[in-house]
Amino acid sequence: MIVALSGGIGGAKLALGLSQVLPPSDLLIVANTGDDFEHLGLTICPDIDTLSYTLAGLDNPVLGWGRHDESWGFMDTLGALGGPDWFRLGDRDLAVHVLRTHRLRGRETLSSITDDVRQRMGIGPRILPMSDDPVRTRILGDAGWIDFQDWFVRQRAAPVVRAVEFAGAAAARPQPEVLAALRAGPRAVAICPSNPFISIEPILAVPGMRDAILASGAPVIAVSPIIAGQAVKGPTAKMFAELGTPPSAAAVAARYGDLLTGYVMEEGDDATGIAPRVFRAATLMRTLDDKVALARAVLAAADALR
Amino acid sequence: MIVALSGGIGGAKLALGLSQVLPPSDLLIVANTGDDFEHLGLTICPDIDTLSYTLAGLDNPVLGWGRHDESWGFMDTLGALGGPDWFRLGDRDLAVHVLRTHRLRGRETLSSITDDVRQRMGIGPRILPMSDDPVRTRILGDAGWIDFQDWFVRQRAAPVVRAVEFAGAAAARPQPEVLAALRAGPRAVAICPSNPFISIEPILAVPGMRDAILASGAPVIAVSPIIAGQAVKGPTAKMFAELGTPPSAAAVAARYGDLLTGYVMEEGDDATGIAPRVFRAATLMRTLDDKVALARAVLAAADALR
Repeated sequence: MIVALSGGIGGAKLALGLSQVLPPSDLLIVANTGDDFEHLGLTICPDIDTLSYTLAGLDNPVLGWGRHDESWGFMDTLGALGGPDWFRLGDRDLAVHVLRTHRLRGRETLSSITDDVRQRMGIGPRILPMSDDPVRTRILGDAGWIDFQDWFVRQRAAPVVRAVEFAGAAAARPQPEVLAALRAGPRAVAICPSNPFISIEPILAVPGMRDAILASGAPVIAVSPIIAGQAVKGPTAKMFAELGTPPSAAAVAARYGDLLTGYVMEEGDDATGIAPRVFRAATLMRTLDDKVALARAVLAAADALR
Repeated sequence: MIVALSGGIGGAKLALGLSQVLPPSDLLIVANTGDDFEHLGLTICPDIDTLSYTLAGLDNPVLGWGRHDESWGFMDTLGALGGPDWFRLGDRDLAVHVLRTHRLRGRETLSSITDDVRQRMGIGPRILPMSDDPVRTRILGDAGWIDFQDWFVRQRAAPVVRAVEFAGAAAARPQPEVLAALRAGPRAVAICPSNPFISIEPILAVPGMRDAILASGAPVIAVSPIIAGQAVKGPTAKMFAELGTPPSAAAVAARYGDLLTGYVMEEGDDATGIAPRVFRAATLMRTLDDKVALARAVLAAADALR
């Protein structure tokens, strides 16, 4: 079993690669839920949905979020009615949010709903939230603490980030099947090339999760989301700079600290001071072949460390 | 002021006619909310929405419900995810339901939300619910009591109707602006050609509503929804037969009893035994001209009775 920790778009690319080279039963994807939020009375789980859409082949490579077969009648009408239109909800995407919210209100767990949606979409590997309890990432900007999606989408990640917190994390319980998979001694734990601050650290902030990873005895391999000092997509580099560290592959490895036993990074990037064993690979995933090749590199790194 | 009591499609046709011949400030449409229901966590108000769409020119004359400019991405996806698809929610229609539900949860009244949506849609006359408190029509069939929309939509009105009840009506308060309009001495109260059992009687079941109509001193004019023993649309005739009375214009008038001072019915239909003064008109509303002509006939009847 490979246990892969993932945020949205970058992580989902590697998760898709892993899904192409592993039998479905040998891959468990643990999704960040720190950027989940309540909007218009709906519970929206962006990373779970990006993972599901990507693994189902429904993702929208042009937008970088949502579905490729989307329509916007709901959003157009909502705007005309004076409703909030800063967070774009496609008509088809909305079906997931409405159904999930309704089932959560009926006391079904997010894990159970996510697993059902995953199966309905014809996705083989399991995708599970890091916790069934709500964890909500918050950003401290110059105007105080704001909700993550307010910062990320409504304010287009513009406010300078002074700190990040994960509200609810202290009381959250790790998803039981994730814990069980870690206890069973996985082949590896893969940390996908996601933003460490807002995609991976919320997962690690769930009490018991970091310890369970360490106790698993498995190689823990992270893939750098930073190439040549820049993020492929999203605010990772900006957040490093604003939080006081020049963005680099090494800076990402340093944030994960003693959790890592291996680190996959781009050929040519500076590995000075990186503690875990470094493996070089092509980490920019444009095509499906790129994703598959990177997935194979992660597995090879893990097996080299066993 | 004309106060018009209305259900969905048939009533909305006369309401549209009235809106064409009266200044907006002289028409108050009171919508039945007995067939409102909670579905997928959303509060859906079919009669309010049919009235709004009809008066905004957005109605769908082919389906007889919903909007003419509709798309179905949400519904298609919901079905693929195993969600309930017996109640069809269009993508644009859904914007009203999501926004309304969110605002109701924030403690705004249904009246306030309905009035805002009405203005956003560019509708002149006010549309208000009969009450801001929930009233839910239920149907007694051979298998026991079921919710109205379960009977009407999911079971296509097939189960034989043994009785009708309005859950919550006893505790519901009449909408205050409706009461105020009745107290101010309106030119007439018009009972639109809607199903008496499930569209008009829920309105009259709100404590104080019937008394306020009687106390208003205004002519109360109903328009028959039955022509030549048949309903133009919907289960009105079926319900009369199953509840023990052959369907006829006279049977409708008898249900309203001493509330009526005037009754508008089709030329040629039998008026034997009808207590209020009978006015003859063309009551089948196919075109906008038909609706306007019937609206004028109702106003003429009212003025003849003053």
